[in-house]
Amino acid sequence: MNNKQHNIENHQAPFLAVDIIIEYSMNDKEYIVLIERENFPKGIALPGGFAEYGLTLEENAVKESKEETNLEVIIENPEHPLCVHSDPYRDPRGHVISVTYTAKGSGILRSGDDARSTIICPIDEISLLLENGDFAFNDHKRALQDYLKFRGYAK
Amino acid sequence: MNNKQHNIENHQAPFLAVDIIIEYSMNDKEYIVLIERENFPKGIALPGGFAEYGLTLEENAVKESKEETNLEVIIENPEHPLCVHSDPYRDPRGHVISVTYTAKGSGILRSGDDARSTIICPIDEISLLLENGDFAFNDHKRALQDYLKFRGYAK
Repeated sequence: MNNKQHNIENHQAPFLAVDIIIEYSMNDKEYIVLIERENFPKGIALPGGFAEYGLTLEENAVKESKEETNLEVIIENPEHPLCVHSDPYRDPRGHVISVTYTAKGSGILRSGDDARSTIICPIDEISLLLENGDFAFNDHKRALQDYLKFRGYAK
Repeated sequence: MNNKQHNIENHQAPFLAVDIIIEYSMNDKEYIVLIERENFPKGIALPGGFAEYGLTLEENAVKESKEETNLEVIIENPEHPLCVHSDPYRDPRGHVISVTYTAKGSGILRSGDDARSTIICPIDEISLLLENGDFAFNDHKRALQDYLKFRGYAK
């Protein structure tokens, strides 16, 4: 940490976002909840949003999930997220570093906020969606591939 | 993501830092490299620093390791850090979210920048240091405990 160059007040920092892979059960079948983004960049995306000062990433993820999908979520392993993506060009709006969590969702699905609509994808059809879906962020696809491996659905 | 409230220009965001657990070999013995911080908050800490706009977290971690310890490091699993700490009160300077990596270090150890001195702790004495050392950030101790479990040195 170089306090001469980067003191906390004038540091030019990347933005930070949380993204959430929400697992949701319906009629004994397992789904992942995705959103269709209302705003630029458009496309399919994981629910999520910018980190806020004063909230833990877990609290942020709970709040964003509620705003975009109406679901109550329980974040798995807040100190050990599924993955982190930090390529400066991953988001066309600027340098946004993304921390992705997995979570269990419950409640009534309803799209809101930046989500034009919600998409519920059966877990056994995620691979198909990754091949054919038009995603807003390429690395959300990589996060979902990581998820499939992490859960033992893919190698 | 609520673009009405949090557009990317005026969003009040937490700061982001990378911290690195650097493994370093000398005379066939394995060590972890820590620093004694020059600036507030003082105490023992993992090498690290604030994330910079335009650099991946991996690039940031390599740069900060070099500045503080003079070592060349290779970051393990850039998309899968060891842990993430996001408590708004973890750092007395403000809300700083920390992403911690493990890395292999090589080269000549020499303290610099925010590091008043470097500390090389044999891996089998980390537990003792955690008990008795005066750390600048409490969760750096938790990261080291995670590390010992991750490498199979502790349960």
